[in-house]
Amino acid sequence: MSQTKIVVIGGVACGPKSAARARRRDPHADITIIERGDLLSYAGCGMPYYIQGVIETTDELMSTAAGAVRDAAFFDNVKAINVMDRTLASGIDRKRKTVEVVSVETAEKSEVPYDKLVLAVGADALAPPFPGVDLKGVYRLNSPHDADKIKDAMLNGCKHAVIIGAGLIGIEVTEALAAHQLSVTIIEMMDSVVPAVLDLETSAQLERHLCCNGVNVMTQTKVQSLQGDDTGQVNAVITDRGSIEADMVLVAVGVRPNTKLAADAGLELGITKAIKVNEYLQTSDPDIYAGGDCVENINLISGRPAYVPLGSTANKHGRIIGDNVTGGKSTFKGVMGTVVFKAFDFNVGHTGLSEKECVKLGIPYVTAITPGPDKAHYYPTSQSMVLKMIASPDTGKLLGVQAVGEGDVVKRIDVAATAITCGATVEDISGLDLGYAPPYSSAVDLMAHAANVIDNKNCGLARSIRASDLKQMMDSGEDFLLLDVRGAKEVEARPWNNPKVVNIPLGALRSRVDELPKDREIITFCTVSLRGYEAQRVLDGEGFTRVRFLDGGVAGWPYSLDQE
Amino acid sequence: MSQTKIVVIGGVACGPKSAARARRRDPHADITIIERGDLLSYAGCGMPYYIQGVIETTDELMSTAAGAVRDAAFFDNVKAINVMDRTLASGIDRKRKTVEVVSVETAEKSEVPYDKLVLAVGADALAPPFPGVDLKGVYRLNSPHDADKIKDAMLNGCKHAVIIGAGLIGIEVTEALAAHQLSVTIIEMMDSVVPAVLDLETSAQLERHLCCNGVNVMTQTKVQSLQGDDTGQVNAVITDRGSIEADMVLVAVGVRPNTKLAADAGLELGITKAIKVNEYLQTSDPDIYAGGDCVENINLISGRPAYVPLGSTANKHGRIIGDNVTGGKSTFKGVMGTVVFKAFDFNVGHTGLSEKECVKLGIPYVTAITPGPDKAHYYPTSQSMVLKMIASPDTGKLLGVQAVGEGDVVKRIDVAATAITCGATVEDISGLDLGYAPPYSSAVDLMAHAANVIDNKNCGLARSIRASDLKQMMDSGEDFLLLDVRGAKEVEARPWNNPKVVNIPLGALRSRVDELPKDREIITFCTVSLRGYEAQRVLDGEGFTRVRFLDGGVAGWPYSLDQE
Repeated sequence: MSQTKIVVIGGVACGPKSAARARRRDPHADITIIERGDLLSYAGCGMPYYIQGVIETTDELMSTAAGAVRDAAFFDNVKAINVMDRTLASGIDRKRKTVEVVSVETAEKSEVPYDKLVLAVGADALAPPFPGVDLKGVYRLNSPHDADKIKDAMLNGCKHAVIIGAGLIGIEVTEALAAHQLSVTIIEMMDSVVPAVLDLETSAQLERHLCCNGVNVMTQTKVQSLQGDDTGQVNAVITDRGSIEADMVLVAVGVRPNTKLAADAGLELGITKAIKVNEYLQTSDPDIYAGGDCVENINLISGRPAYVPLGSTANKHGRIIGDNVTGGKSTFKGVMGTVVFKAFDFNVGHTGLSEKECVKLGIPYVTAITPGPDKAHYYPTSQSMVLKMIASPDTGKLLGVQAVGEGDVVKRIDVAATAITCGATVEDISGLDLGYAPPYSSAVDLMAHAANVIDNKNCGLARSIRASDLKQMMDSGEDFLLLDVRGAKEVEARPWNNPKVVNIPLGALRSRVDELPKDREIITFCTVSLRGYEAQRVLDGEGFTRVRFLDGGVAGWPYSLDQE
Repeated sequence: MSQTKIVVIGGVACGPKSAARARRRDPHADITIIERGDLLSYAGCGMPYYIQGVIETTDELMSTAAGAVRDAAFFDNVKAINVMDRTLASGIDRKRKTVEVVSVETAEKSEVPYDKLVLAVGADALAPPFPGVDLKGVYRLNSPHDADKIKDAMLNGCKHAVIIGAGLIGIEVTEALAAHQLSVTIIEMMDSVVPAVLDLETSAQLERHLCCNGVNVMTQTKVQSLQGDDTGQVNAVITDRGSIEADMVLVAVGVRPNTKLAADAGLELGITKAIKVNEYLQTSDPDIYAGGDCVENINLISGRPAYVPLGSTANKHGRIIGDNVTGGKSTFKGVMGTVVFKAFDFNVGHTGLSEKECVKLGIPYVTAITPGPDKAHYYPTSQSMVLKMIASPDTGKLLGVQAVGEGDVVKRIDVAATAITCGATVEDISGLDLGYAPPYSSAVDLMAHAANVIDNKNCGLARSIRASDLKQMMDSGEDFLLLDVRGAKEVEARPWNNPKVVNIPLGALRSRVDELPKDREIITFCTVSLRGYEAQRVLDGEGFTRVRFLDGGVAGWPYSLDQE
């Protein structure tokens, strides 16, 4: 009978998953999990919702769907897995195949021998070297214990929160704090929110939504220091754009993979500074596997190493490692960079490459910006969103999709992630037999519509101008005409106060075409630019040669409509 | 300048779409739509929601997202498309390339010449030859006018509705009528609801939900006649299982493609009796195209002709025909048979092949039945569903997915439709980088979980028994043991009252294994059979050789739990 010694360092996501999978494959293996903390197998992604109060206890984050709390006794009884918690793995002796461990409570040292070792040591929130980062009231969100501290502060009198970093965690916690009537300021060094994931058009929509919910968003702002009072309690955040009152600060500027153990043992790290693994999730030592937030992955579409720590990926890694430490040959192909999150009433998502990434990688691309409803527009629960699709102008292959709005964004992101993984083209997307019924989608789903727009652009039928280019033309005082083809009611509801705007509803365009100059550049638009595009085609047919429509129309315009 | 004469017969979905697309591609074409009715371009799929009152006016079904009603003036002004409504196309002279038309109002005949002709003549609800089908109070649902009649009857005193046919339309209208406090009986000839789409496990869940909502579901019941009173008003439906009181009857036993015009013109029909078209959507006459509910498609996964009339497909057809009647070469590859619909609080969906279809086509398959939550199970809006996945045991290729429940079924169906279209395997599904955040999904999405179950079965790790086979073993009095590995609270909440059941919670199984007989067959189960599978592996490890788990556990059990 086999008695392989499998030792797993890390007890949160990938670690317990790989141990449990190994147990199911090999009933006789000797399996041990070593965890530095006192909590096991918790859903870290649920912590913002615990702070908000949507989830009542941290126990819920550690429970199975059937309600069993995953503690050491659970692993022992249910999985026959030995758990050493409050135990720090302090070194790996690869020659002798042992892990040196230290008890957090007694500081006692011991050795744990292994045949196969799994590093699932996760990542920690970055602590940037701001003066004052150690003041009372300054938090990071690493574990349920941190969540408890933030929740306590929130419920016990804190009024002014500052979140440093407009990434996912920063925004998720913002919602939690705002729900408890704290004033929240988000400070972001880059020029937009969630800059690592979203392009200008989608990020501008999200920023507007945050502002509508009372959040003070400060982009292009650098934190210089945190200031405290006599008791050592933080009271302000000092930035290059002024000082902001704060009795609570969350530093959420990203996470760093925990690689010290691996590096000290001489294991190879990747260019993202996370642990390097092959497709079997083996490190440079074939008896040592690594997965979860401590490893780097391959981005399936760029083919490049990427560091995208996510609970879903950690679980996939765990299953594959569980296979391979018990004699299997499973492979992990890579990630699509998929990210989804909730921000107040908005759903936000991204998969594949953003336009920014295409630019950085030198990949040619064409985009569509399609605002639209998520369900049949006449169905009462229909909600809108703005979807941006990015594809190759040469092959038509889908490169990326991002979407933001109150509509069902995530369904489209999941379809896109699946399609991109399979190498689908915009023609394939246009033809997909997606589920259609009025409570779920429109007859032409927004994904198919976006694919059709790209197809129209690729074949030369549609010619558009992006919002940022139009903005530049406006700012530099170029001569052109903005042709608004919306109806009177729509114009009244959302006027574009700009002297260049001429309004001729699409239905009157053919009969009033003589009112338009053929020698001037014309940019057509409507609410979403379906009619804007149609107007471009009408004018093409009338012999106009300098017509383009505005990508995404008024609904996709990321700037103010009152701006010159 | 081009002046191609494009004539489109049919003004509902595919027709207007092909005309509008042709217009955008060719600003100078002469385009005419001929429509027998007085309503244009309406969303037929929205009719049940209009009856229910969720949508207030039929105008909403005929409006653009911007609020313009798509009537003849709209097509004239906005699209420069000529509409001949209340006009019947009575014949096609293919030699002279003319369509013979008759005015519905004046009976005046005339001819419309064409260069390219488009048949988008739709389908009509079947009228089975029951005696009494012409009684007052007996309806079919073909057009918004029919919807008005049904709505009037519902709002004006009808109390007892009988729906003949447990298909999509029957169930959607059932919900509408039940919402207005009518008692509703659904009569279905086959042995389950939505038999053309769903397999036993999912259909049983749906049937139970209909019953919970007060609907009287009678399957395996044949209608013999409709009975009326002295005034010619229906008052009962006579079946082979008795008479059912009815003051309103909806006949919803399916639709039949309108093919008379095509057949009379000598155009080829397919084996499904719908119009046969090639991938360019050309009929057997290359100048005549056809699309929407009157044509047959290819099922992409079986490669066989299929008749699946849907508004989404009609729109795709329209775009492709619009391309091809203006010199393009676009192709329609086929359908995946995707169907989604809402039934009270349940979302129901299917894509690809059902198990039934695999059996019929002789395609080998393996299935997984996975009940589970649609979001992180600890997130408060999390809802459950039962997902059935069907894949090839040889190649691992995904063949079909169906799902039913309060959870977000449609997202999974859309991912599955995309994956099957692209030829993805269960290994691909398991590795998909789907969007993960607690408000949207669990870390291991139910799709990935189902794929993992199939992988476990394919590699021999998991051995299961399907519910129907276990039922048969129970019914025939075979000797075996049902091992319930749920905890005490779960057992109490949903006991399985059967003398064969032994309860040992999974956490105690290893220590109490001696209580179980090695020589008897053991079927393990829990709520969803995650632990059922784990118990099978524990017993495997203890040297038991006759252990299987019950597919889908108690949550997936389609029969009563009180049955011997």
